[in-house]
Order: sequence, then structure tokens, then C-alpha cells
Amino acid sequence: MVLVRPRNPLNIGACARAMSNFGVHRLRLVNPYAIAFREARSAVGASELLKNAEEFKSVAEAVTDCSLVVGTTAVRNRVLQHPLFKLNEDGGDRIRTTLLAGRVGLLFGSEKIGLTNEDFSHCHWLLHVPTDSQHISMNLGQAVAVCLYGIACSAADKTTPSDSDPADAGELEKITQCLYEALEKSGYVKPGNDAVSEKKVRQLMLRLNLQAMDAKVLLGMVRQIVWKLRQEKR
Amino acid sequence: MVLVRPRNPLNIGACARAMSNFGVHRLRLVNPYAIAFREARSAVGASELLKNAEEFKSVAEAVTDCSLVVGTTAVRNRVLQHPLFKLNEDGGDRIRTTLLAGRVGLLFGSEKIGLTNEDFSHCHWLLHVPTDSQHISMNLGQAVAVCLYGIACSAADKTTPSDSDPADAGELEKITQCLYEALEKSGYVKPGNDAVSEKKVRQLMLRLNLQAMDAKVLLGMVRQIVWKLRQEKR
Repeated sequence: MVLVRPRNPLNIGACARAMSNFGVHRLRLVNPYAIAFREARSAVGASELLKNAEEFKSVAEAVTDCSLVVGTTAVRNRVLQHPLFKLNEDGGDRIRTTLLAGRVGLLFGSEKIGLTNEDFSHCHWLLHVPTDSQHISMNLGQAVAVCLYGIACSAADKTTPSDSDPADAGELEKITQCLYEALEKSGYVKPGNDAVSEKKVRQLMLRLNLQAMDAKVLLGMVRQIVWKLRQEKR
Repeated sequence: MVLVRPRNPLNIGACARAMSNFGVHRLRLVNPYAIAFREARSAVGASELLKNAEEFKSVAEAVTDCSLVVGTTAVRNRVLQHPLFKLNEDGGDRIRTTLLAGRVGLLFGSEKIGLTNEDFSHCHWLLHVPTDSQHISMNLGQAVAVCLYGIACSAADKTTPSDSDPADAGELEKITQCLYEALEKSGYVKPGNDAVSEKKVRQLMLRLNLQAMDAKVLLGMVRQIVWKLRQEKR
């Protein structure tokens, strides 16, 4: 469970409580409002889970060991570049299935604006809770509770081959960084032209559905290319 | 949605918000903490739904027009006299099915102790959200959100004959009151012996699954008996 820029200590506490209710134990916060995080942790009855919550400076760092990263969204008027799955349809089932083999990072945005496009760029796909079309904005703690309940009640697809070992987000981020450097150094990315952004490269990597072994190989390839390009520059 | 003795204005507000999210519009409160209710209603951004919330002095009055009354419980160590259905199994489906034909009263208890046995006696059956066995106590607002989401995602069993018109709780309560008086006057209920309590009579009536027409007939019968018993007494 990853809370990105949460602002309200009560909401942080509510998220932790819902996690306990549904047997989820690892809480991570990306750039929380410092006062909010302090208050939430020092609240009377704050759980071990909350006290053990980890703080990160970026989404990339928070999801580095996850083999699936899912962002939550209320889908306002935004044009989304990502596949979107409903919690009660494919979304919950996919998360359950991945949990059989690896770790899933479920991202919730700040109370006011939710997740940004930059946050989304770290996600394989987006999860949506179907609500009344006139009242789509859920309270953060309630959204967390509903999502965790929905995932807990979903059916994992056990036909997935268990010998597949998906690459985790940290590996993919390394490839992204490397490849982007290669694209810059090779002149594919031109200064002032952000048609190919780091976000887009990251998304491409996530779409590849790389296995852990393949990710290693690919990272080696790109690293070698970058090394060569660095030589050229001198 | 019926909140019984809620104490925290934030929870009342959270319940109202979850109701909006899932398209549920009628909020009723039984003996709310007066200050909490006032604060919740006067909060900035309080919804119409919250402003239109109705207050009742008893559960019986709050559910009088409901044809199905369901209590929520975390099932601690309590011995329950009621059928218990899980939200993600039979529970949600049964509520959805009833909603096709009539009104359902969904009861949530106070933050501290939940619903009492007296509250339960007004319920046809109880609804349970499956949680981690070590952390079964959910926050009120989150429990409401999860239940409403679970019900919204449930499948209504449309094979139920639509010509059946179940008796509502108000009718059943009249029969209960009348029958209990008859039992007292006839000596079936003995002073000091509460083996047959009003709660038990109420439960019996709820179990009968009475149709509206049959309830009318039965009430007429019991009323006549009570009238006769009152004569005898003189």
C-alpha cells in the first residue's frame, strides 16, 4: 500500500486500520505532509503497522521491489494513457493473481488531486472503483478499505504458470533510466522537444511485461550501449 | 442506511459520503449523540443527504417501512441467534434481490459496541464483512463504504417472483406488540419469567417471512384476541 502525498493524519490512520482489517501489512508513504505523518504515528492506539510505515522521496523508490504497480483513479475528465480495470471486474482478479507470485504496489494519491500523470507513469495499469457518476470522489480511507475488501474477495487465476517470475519495478526503472540516457546521448531525445519523455519510456518498459531474467539481460544491453555512448561523447 | 447511536460527527459525515458514492440516499439515525449529529450536519460541505437525515427514538421507528432489516456485526465472541450471511457471499445478493421489490434497512451500531441484542431483535438476519481474524473491528465509515460497495457489486436474483410483496417491519412490529400483549394477558408470559421476551416474539415474526396481505390478516386475528382478553380481565 503506497500513499502518495497524503495530507490528513486521520486518513493515514484510517488507511492503516483498513490494512489491518484485510491482512495487508506494508504501508509506504511518498512525500507525506510531515506534520500529518507525525500526528498519525503518534496518535493514541496507532498500530505497529503505522509505526513501521516507511517514507520515500519518490514513487520509483517506494515501488522498487514490486512486480506489479497499480494506480487508483476516479477517472474524472482525464484522458488516460493506461489500461483501466474495474475493482469488481478484472482489476481485483489481476491483483490477486499477481499476489500469488510477487508483490503488488497499490498507489493512492493525495486527498485533493489524487495521483498525477507522473505518478501514473510508474503504473502498469489503473484501478477504478465504480461509483455513482454524480459522486465519484471517495474519501481516501474509505477508498482504501473498499479496494482492499474488493481485492480480498477477488478470485486469483491460479492457471497462471507459477514459474514465471516477473521483473520488479526497480529493475524496470534502471532500464528506463539507462535507456533514456542512451536516447539523450544518441540524439533521439532532442532538448526542448519532450515528445519522448522519461514517462513515455517508463510506460513502454511496463508494457513489455518483462520476466526477471529478461530484464537483467536487457539492462546489461542498454548499459553497454550507454557506456559506449559516453565514450563517444569525449 | 440506519446508524444506531453514532457518537463521532466525522463518522456520520463519512457514512453520508460513502452513501453518495454508491447511490444510497436515505440516512436515518437512532438516538445519535446530539452534539455529533449537530456537528456533522453543520460541517462545511455537508451534503443534502446529511441535511435531510432523519432522527428516530427507536430502531422500530427507523425501520418501520422496510421489508428487510439487516444488522451488521463483526461477530466477536457473541453467540448469535440470527442467520449470518457474508457480504461477499449470500449477504450482498439477498439485499440486492430485496431491493428490486422493497426497501432495505441496513443497521450499523455505535463505534464502541456495535449493535445490541435488542437492536438485533429487529433484524431478519445479520451481515458480516469477512476480515482478518486478528483485526475484525472496522472503522464505522469504512465499514459502511465496504458494505455499500459490496451490495452494489452483488448480483440480484431476478428469478424471485415479483408478485410477492413482503410485509414491512412496521406491520410486523404491530403484530409483535399485539401478540405479546395477548401472551401476557393469557398468562403465557409470567411476570418475573422472561423466557418469552418481546425480542423473541419479534424474532419469530421476522422468521415467518410474512407477505403483506398475510400480515394484515394475522394482525386482525391477534387484535381480535387481544380485544377479547381485555374483556375477560374486567
